[in-house]
Amino acid sequence: MRDFSADHRWLSINTATVRRQRGQDWALLEIIDACAARGIRAISPWRDQVHAAGLAATVRAVRDHGLELSGYCRGGMFTYADNAGRQAVRDDNLRALDEACELAAACLVLVVGGLPGALAGRAAHKDIAAAREQVAEGVAVLLEEARRRGMPLAIEPLHPMYAAERACINTLEQALDLCDALDAGRTGALGVAVDVYHVWWDPKLPAQIVRAGSDRLLALHVCDWLTPTTDLLNDRGMMGDGVIDIRQIRSWVEAQGFAGYSEVEIFSTTNWWQRDGGEVLDTCIQRHRQCV
Amino acid sequence: MRDFSADHRWLSINTATVRRQRGQDWALLEIIDACAARGIRAISPWRDQVHAAGLAATVRAVRDHGLELSGYCRGGMFTYADNAGRQAVRDDNLRALDEACELAAACLVLVVGGLPGALAGRAAHKDIAAAREQVAEGVAVLLEEARRRGMPLAIEPLHPMYAAERACINTLEQALDLCDALDAGRTGALGVAVDVYHVWWDPKLPAQIVRAGSDRLLALHVCDWLTPTTDLLNDRGMMGDGVIDIRQIRSWVEAQGFAGYSEVEIFSTTNWWQRDGGEVLDTCIQRHRQCV
Repeated sequence: MRDFSADHRWLSINTATVRRQRGQDWALLEIIDACAARGIRAISPWRDQVHAAGLAATVRAVRDHGLELSGYCRGGMFTYADNAGRQAVRDDNLRALDEACELAAACLVLVVGGLPGALAGRAAHKDIAAAREQVAEGVAVLLEEARRRGMPLAIEPLHPMYAAERACINTLEQALDLCDALDAGRTGALGVAVDVYHVWWDPKLPAQIVRAGSDRLLALHVCDWLTPTTDLLNDRGMMGDGVIDIRQIRSWVEAQGFAGYSEVEIFSTTNWWQRDGGEVLDTCIQRHRQCV
Repeated sequence: MRDFSADHRWLSINTATVRRQRGQDWALLEIIDACAARGIRAISPWRDQVHAAGLAATVRAVRDHGLELSGYCRGGMFTYADNAGRQAVRDDNLRALDEACELAAACLVLVVGGLPGALAGRAAHKDIAAAREQVAEGVAVLLEEARRRGMPLAIEPLHPMYAAERACINTLEQALDLCDALDAGRTGALGVAVDVYHVWWDPKLPAQIVRAGSDRLLALHVCDWLTPTTDLLNDRGMMGDGVIDIRQIRSWVEAQGFAGYSEVEIFSTTNWWQRDGGEVLDTCIQRHRQCV
């Protein structure tokens, strides 16, 4: 297992972590500058941030600073209520894929979608098995294009509390079942993003990480689970402030050969998003060394 | 599958559903009267409500009204930080068991506990595997006493969002693994309480309900998952107001031979706990017939 205590060469910042500080959007190009100034070597930006900054400008900034992208957030949201929705989803995912290629991301992260309409509070139906079939179909279609471009797809199982609205793939086992169905040869084109926040509770986690192996382990995301957690979406904790044994999970992942970045992804309306962005980045560096 | 549309003979009210209406505790004996007056044939009371009303008085009220108890809430919380905690847990669970027997409950429901101290925001450690070992030990010890008294124990897997603070058994599969380990003979002494709120998201749910079979299916709890859900603990929905396909899950359970009550358990700070208790009970009856 790699020693993270002496430096932060394996730290990546998911830029949602500092997306909106004290009520003001922090522009992606400024975030990139702030990361590079601290010797952070990798980021994982969100699409809306890239669109706001401009894709070409983002590509240039990333290249100029010699940054890597531990992933690109995100494709997915494959579930749909009608044929128009189905086509819109396909088109949008192709754009996400092309952007990931432009940015030379390590993978395109997939948040697969829940019950269609549920995110807006108006679920079109209650058939989560049907939603899962749409996801399998959507990943299969996108995978063909992704293979052609050489861009790995990383399915991110989301915590079961997001099953209705955001992702109906909710365990690592379930994500790996889909990987096995669509990429039996373990070609590297399809794998998973393991976010400790989503999977830490799972009694099958260590066994499923072994099952994943290095072929499927495309990304590692870290933050912490707070007790109490006051908001289902935006009350993630800084590493070390919660109950997740992050180092244990990293040890399992690395035992399989994972040697990529540890990507910090924290959504925190009332705490970290209320602070100066530089302070948040400095804290990420410190906690990466102490707690990851 | 039983037809619930014509009457509510298979409705049970978990008394937490109407425990505190408009800021005032509703006394258990009054809740019992209100249920009986509506032809509700079963309840599942919480221990603190029974203690406030007095065990003997509760037993009398239940008997006088000819009510059944679909369960008794709850034993468990098996995890501990030290030997004093371990003994306190055992003693308290024996009391819960004796109370369940006095009340002639169908089962004692077990919410098994999370990381010790986490419920108070001060987790003693982050080793959820160790917590799970304490749970297995705690259930094993209690099971001996429960067998002696003829009181079935129903392990309730809780939604993974409660893994830290309330229950580190988070899937039906995991609960059944423990049942198989401790009661390989499927004697009826140990089983599960299936609460749709906790398990609806699980892709393995139908298969695990088959695995459970009628020997292990001791209780069925219903409510609904709202989108959005604004609070991790106390924003459960009334059946029909959310995204859970309750009837589908009931059909799976009944296909295994389950023929017990459908127990409504809703914690709802901002909606149902703000209404008149009688209105809530009337709504439970109506939704039981329409949506369960």
